[in-house]
Amino acid sequence: MADSFKIIRDSIHGNIRFDGIFLNLLNSPELQRLSSIKQLGLAHLVFPGAHHTRLEHSFGAFHMASQIAESVNISEEEKQVVKCAALLHDIGHGPFSHTLESILRNSLNVDHVDLTQKLITGQYSIFQDDEKEFAQHTSTVADILNRYNIDTSTISDMIKGTLTSKPYLTQILNSVIDVDQLDYLLRDAYYTGVAYGMIDTQRFVQTVRIYQDQLALNRKGVGVVENILMARALMYSSVYYHKTVRIAELMLCRALEMLPSLHPFNFFSMNDAELVMHLKKQESFQHSLITRLKYRQLFKQAFVLSSQQLSPDRKQLISLLEQNSLRREKEQVFEEKLHIPEGQVIIDIPSPDLHQAEPRIQQTDIPIIDGDLSKPLNEYTPVAEAIRMRSIPDWEVMIITDEKYRETVSNHAEKLLFS
Amino acid sequence: MADSFKIIRDSIHGNIRFDGIFLNLLNSPELQRLSSIKQLGLAHLVFPGAHHTRLEHSFGAFHMASQIAESVNISEEEKQVVKCAALLHDIGHGPFSHTLESILRNSLNVDHVDLTQKLITGQYSIFQDDEKEFAQHTSTVADILNRYNIDTSTISDMIKGTLTSKPYLTQILNSVIDVDQLDYLLRDAYYTGVAYGMIDTQRFVQTVRIYQDQLALNRKGVGVVENILMARALMYSSVYYHKTVRIAELMLCRALEMLPSLHPFNFFSMNDAELVMHLKKQESFQHSLITRLKYRQLFKQAFVLSSQQLSPDRKQLISLLEQNSLRREKEQVFEEKLHIPEGQVIIDIPSPDLHQAEPRIQQTDIPIIDGDLSKPLNEYTPVAEAIRMRSIPDWEVMIITDEKYRETVSNHAEKLLFS
Amino acid sequence: MADSFKIIRDSIHGNIRFDGIFLNLLNSPELQRLSSIKQLGLAHLVFPGAHHTRLEHSFGAFHMASQIAESVNISEEEKQVVKCAALLHDIGHGPFSHTLESILRNSLNVDHVDLTQKLITGQYSIFQDDEKEFAQHTSTVADILNRYNIDTSTISDMIKGTLTSKPYLTQILNSVIDVDQLDYLLRDAYYTGVAYGMIDTQRFVQTVRIYQDQLALNRKGVGVVENILMARALMYSSVYYHKTVRIAELMLCRALEMLPSLHPFNFFSMNDAELVMHLKKQESFQHSLITRLKYRQLFKQAFVLSSQQLSPDRKQLISLLEQNSLRREKEQVFEEKLHIPEGQVIIDIPSPDLHQAEPRIQQTDIPIIDGDLSKPLNEYTPVAEAIRMRSIPDWEVMIITDEKYRETVSNHAEKLLFS
Amino acid sequence: MADSFKIIRDSIHGNIRFDGIFLNLLNSPELQRLSSIKQLGLAHLVFPGAHHTRLEHSFGAFHMASQIAESVNISEEEKQVVKCAALLHDIGHGPFSHTLESILRNSLNVDHVDLTQKLITGQYSIFQDDEKEFAQHTSTVADILNRYNIDTSTISDMIKGTLTSKPYLTQILNSVIDVDQLDYLLRDAYYTGVAYGMIDTQRFVQTVRIYQDQLALNRKGVGVVENILMARALMYSSVYYHKTVRIAELMLCRALEMLPSLHPFNFFSMNDAELVMHLKKQESFQHSLITRLKYRQLFKQAFVLSSQQLSPDRKQLISLLEQNSLRREKEQVFEEKLHIPEGQVIIDIPSPDLHQAEPRIQQTDIPIIDGDLSKPLNEYTPVAEAIRMRSIPDWEVMIITDEKYRETVSNHAEKLLFS
Repeated sequence: MADSFKIIRDSIHGNIRFDGIFLNLLNSPELQRLSSIKQLGLAHLVFPGAHHTRLEHSFGAFHMASQIAESVNISEEEKQVVKCAALLHDIGHGPFSHTLESILRNSLNVDHVDLTQKLITGQYSIFQDDEKEFAQHTSTVADILNRYNIDTSTISDMIKGTLTSKPYLTQILNSVIDVDQLDYLLRDAYYTGVAYGMIDTQRFVQTVRIYQDQLALNRKGVGVVENILMARALMYSSVYYHKTVRIAELMLCRALEMLPSLHPFNFFSMNDAELVMHLKKQESFQHSLITRLKYRQLFKQAFVLSSQQLSPDRKQLISLLEQNSLRREKEQVFEEKLHIPEGQVIIDIPSPDLHQAEPRIQQTDIPIIDGDLSKPLNEYTPVAEAIRMRSIPDWEVMIITDEKYRETVSNHAEKLLFS
Repeated sequence: MADSFKIIRDSIHGNIRFDGIFLNLLNSPELQRLSSIKQLGLAHLVFPGAHHTRLEHSFGAFHMASQIAESVNISEEEKQVVKCAALLHDIGHGPFSHTLESILRNSLNVDHVDLTQKLITGQYSIFQDDEKEFAQHTSTVADILNRYNIDTSTISDMIKGTLTSKPYLTQILNSVIDVDQLDYLLRDAYYTGVAYGMIDTQRFVQTVRIYQDQLALNRKGVGVVENILMARALMYSSVYYHKTVRIAELMLCRALEMLPSLHPFNFFSMNDAELVMHLKKQESFQHSLITRLKYRQLFKQAFVLSSQQLSPDRKQLISLLEQNSLRREKEQVFEEKLHIPEGQVIIDIPSPDLHQAEPRIQQTDIPIIDGDLSKPLNEYTPVAEAIRMRSIPDWEVMIITDEKYRETVSNHAEKLLFS
Repeated sequence: MADSFKIIRDSIHGNIRFDGIFLNLLNSPELQRLSSIKQLGLAHLVFPGAHHTRLEHSFGAFHMASQIAESVNISEEEKQVVKCAALLHDIGHGPFSHTLESILRNSLNVDHVDLTQKLITGQYSIFQDDEKEFAQHTSTVADILNRYNIDTSTISDMIKGTLTSKPYLTQILNSVIDVDQLDYLLRDAYYTGVAYGMIDTQRFVQTVRIYQDQLALNRKGVGVVENILMARALMYSSVYYHKTVRIAELMLCRALEMLPSLHPFNFFSMNDAELVMHLKKQESFQHSLITRLKYRQLFKQAFVLSSQQLSPDRKQLISLLEQNSLRREKEQVFEEKLHIPEGQVIIDIPSPDLHQAEPRIQQTDIPIIDGDLSKPLNEYTPVAEAIRMRSIPDWEVMIITDEKYRETVSNHAEKLLFS
Repeated sequence: MADSFKIIRDSIHGNIRFDGIFLNLLNSPELQRLSSIKQLGLAHLVFPGAHHTRLEHSFGAFHMASQIAESVNISEEEKQVVKCAALLHDIGHGPFSHTLESILRNSLNVDHVDLTQKLITGQYSIFQDDEKEFAQHTSTVADILNRYNIDTSTISDMIKGTLTSKPYLTQILNSVIDVDQLDYLLRDAYYTGVAYGMIDTQRFVQTVRIYQDQLALNRKGVGVVENILMARALMYSSVYYHKTVRIAELMLCRALEMLPSLHPFNFFSMNDAELVMHLKKQESFQHSLITRLKYRQLFKQAFVLSSQQLSPDRKQLISLLEQNSLRREKEQVFEEKLHIPEGQVIIDIPSPDLHQAEPRIQQTDIPIIDGDLSKPLNEYTPVAEAIRMRSIPDWEVMIITDEKYRETVSNHAEKLLFS
């Protein structure tokens, strides 16, 4: 048993080897469930190759963590926990990854990281009601970690970014540039065919260091950071916040929001297919939206304003709609005044979602080691700060609706929105 | 409208442009449904990147057909029908692509090509019972072809390979080397990470010709044919007939076969998720197998024999089991004698499936134009014929079962199998 | 003859087809000579794959020009001149491309663009003295252009960037982002293995437009411009101005500068091998430097200061050394005071070279078409401007010398440099 | 010093690290000289990207040797000698690699492997006459190996394939599939843009084993061997024995053969540029051929016969011409009878060259480990043997000459050749 291992062929990193605890975790139900959860939610409706899943991304994060751990030369014990944390960092994701996270946050004030923590510490389970029997014969992640005497709270704190001792460990998973991003940029570029994410991870691994217990880069790494930050910004603009991808995701969210009642925990342990089939069995409103998504008959953009087109006063008004209930009220104004069936008007204010989904988008500081000193990245290049200031996505507010209401909504949008 | 177009970013071929009839077909429900049908069935359980779908493969076949049509310089009208046929050639696929096709064939003696034909000519529909209302407002493939005055039987004959006039048209879609293979080899290599399929399509396009109404290659194309035939053989050995992939597929087939009653037409219009969720709602036997597939708890190989290990007599005995009912009887002998619950022993005789799924595997002849003459490929290279003789898959018979019965089955397999 | 064509296999762009005038130009001695001139001078001493030549880069620029010409839909006649200009834009390059250009500029105030012009208009010849006979039987570029009735001054003005009518034509070759850069970024990334240059040219081609006779991009192209500008900056930092590459290039320049007499025109028509062998036959100083380059025994860095390490006063002093004669004087101070043989101390002030070799490095403005208007890029993103401000290369002044004088120079550098 | 290392960026394998003895060897003049010797002779005249050198190929072979050494788990000492041998295996190559080897063989009956041996054991030197002084201050490969107490004869026997103890060591460098081929197939594919060579080296490394002191593959490796053998055959047909490449190489050989006197040892230590410039200074015959090569004005094919077109009798006659002196006599018959200047008619009989340059082309047997046994590859697949039987190159005899004599030669070829 000690000698058994498995080699997995990854499209991005080539062969990845699993043995010992990692082989056990690989076979855990929490990790295998990720094989049915798409990495990029509904992005495949625009980029037809984007069906890749959280499972292979987890393998990739594990691989990058192994490489960085080798490069910075930490202890064998530290390597093990870092690699466990990287492999498990996404097990709490709900169906369609980030797509529905705002619903979870709005109703329960938790996110996928919180659920990941609960799974690691054994306080939550991903099994569906009808899978109880199967579950009895299966070792969960918590079981496996305990069997190997790994402290689950260390792992979960590393993933959350709250481990206070040894900051470099948590930073490998959770910082301006971490293994999560190194893998997802490459992987999402590969499967969408959008070359922007083709970063130079080998150079990153080569220049990363530990300096005064912090993850840092030597001076030769300045370029690679600029490369990665730019790649991240461009992937956000052109893929993750692609307008049509967003429209599809808003439709799926709307199907959930309009359910008479559903405890988010109930759907969050589902996989993509389970959620879709569950929704299709609900009211005709949900059935209709899900069928449209199946056949890609999407809502259309009826109105849009970019940051440049908004006066400060109007920006103020728009920001009020960041609050969920107020936004839904405004949508209802549209629906009632324009005689549109309930739920068919969706107002999108994307930036709060962005900043909750990817808080790192606002982070561009990383210590640079220059001789004996460490200085912030901004002393070496103005590009990082400029990337931070760059607006993503392209619009501050957008209204979408069924094709047949588009013109009506378009004609009245300005008046109804700012009244 | 005449000017509207759409550019789709394909991971393999880059930008692909759709306009006119192709844009309409792109938006048809038959084609969009393919977005929920994995190209390689359950291969993602071994190659975690292999979640790509029949939709993007259809785009790729369309792209290759456009390139070949340009290269051989046929008329605009011929180009249009070839490109339509390439785009639509796979719309009849059931859930998980080829995985379940043997069931369809065994019970109804039809395959996905027959269903494709029926869809193109409007005799069959992919809509589920609960999608009737949606269907009313949607143009099907048959509607669109009729609207553009395309003869649906020409298209469907080209796909089937039965168009007698202008053989080169049907050969672009259906011959030793056709656009279907050109795309799937590249695409499956890309998503599985197995480099074998990385063929040189540009060189194929450059050397392809029409000679006496047949698709042929000029002499410089001999190498590219060897390259493609070898790639196809290696992808079959190492991906399509990978032993673990096969085990997962046999489990899914078994779940269907053991249903008390299900008309294959009913499930064949489903997509992957619909079939899985449908099966999970059936008897506990189906529920259990589907849950195992979800969490990747696969049956194990208990017994296997390769061609080299089989005497002619035994080969004879094994070949009897190619008949479905006899094979199931033999499985029941195992189950009863060894006190194993019904359905838990699966005997696999892979070659008949292979030859029905890919009849081209036995074809290696393509005319080569040398000066003014055309000669068969085999006069130029012994490799093509050798590839045809090469055995795929690695085993002639395999028995799989639940881990806990493995040893028992293993111990009694030889005796029970050949008695 | 009209039907004859040739397909060339390019590692970057795949098949490139040449016919008509392009096939004739392809066979011209000026273009074929580029096959012996390395694209990146001596960069192969650091990046061992960087032996690619100006010839394949010329093919790539030709290919990109064809794609852009198709995309913006100019007339057939315009396409022809643009493609001729792209194919010929580099024929005036001397041995080792940009490496020795500062010498040409300092002594004659011309650069490779001026020589390209002279070749196109037939005022200059690339044949060596001993090739007169060969030359008699060969059609030059000027001959071919004349035979096809192409106005050579139009072509040469497009390359120089001085064509006033139809600015978009000259901009395809000569602007913030042009076919020259599109090709060299991709190509240099490919051959050095430095991924930074992996830009998305297909997206550029897709978003480029002509707007009021200027080359512009539609709004969706903002990201691709950021991508390309960042790639260019990073390739400059990490490849073109890599410190060791620079050291090798300074050694080669030094070998030339110390020649008792050599008219730059004489060496500028040579290819790489001819220059090297010519220098090896000169004085022992040249012989020694060339032998060192052959076996990669390079000078070492004895002293270096970055922009951040220089006070304004000292920056002032350094900038005086931008003048060639003053810099040589200062070097002689080092040599005399420290008893180092003549020519063995080299002071490098890189920025003037950079700005002459790549004036586009200071350009980041490109018109963006947004609805009916065109606005400058900077209104859409702060990144372009930040990239412009970013310092390249890493050092403001560097002193290099033979290993055995390194310590001495290092110890006295500060005092001698700023006294 | 013990800690110093260098990381080299390779376009194929990514970062390659050199330390200790390998760093010293990297800086040796014998290895650095390879930076001026093109891997594929004159292939860049057809494939314009093919300027890569023996230096980077040596790095790649070193890298593959490291990977295989890790995989088969030999001792640290064995690893060191294998890696040294891989790094040094090509240092004896003359200018333009294999191009001129037939001359060396015909006049002295040695090849580049013999020269490699002499260099490693210190019996031969690559320095030119004018480099004596430089040589005095430089450590040669033999010096370095001695300093590290490496037995030079072990290294040289491994490269030659004559090491009798531990056959697996020599087989890593010298067998049906070895590190030399693994690297050159990938590398030549990359730089020529011909995809055929894109083999799956990772899978080879994963399946390679030592079995009874022999290098062998486990059964899963059968496919990867077929893949590599096919790739090799296709690269030979389409790149190495591309007709136009061959024509250029024959012209260069002819320039040398017609020299009044030149001891092959004298030119064999030159690099590409040195040989070219040396030849250009000789008689007008050499000058003319070299100038033609510089500007790519190649001889043309006047006559050609393939194996299929030759009767057994005529094959017999052709085979007589394999002897150099008889071939030259026959060429002179053409020249005299047709009044063509001396040296302008070249008769090519390619197969003897092929079999001397790549004796492995006739080898397709490699032991396959199946359970406890080892069987030859041919028991598992008929493809390997078929590849061996496949004829390379496309022609058995070809006559080339200057464009202006082409028609005359063509008209009289058959009669003069077989009389």
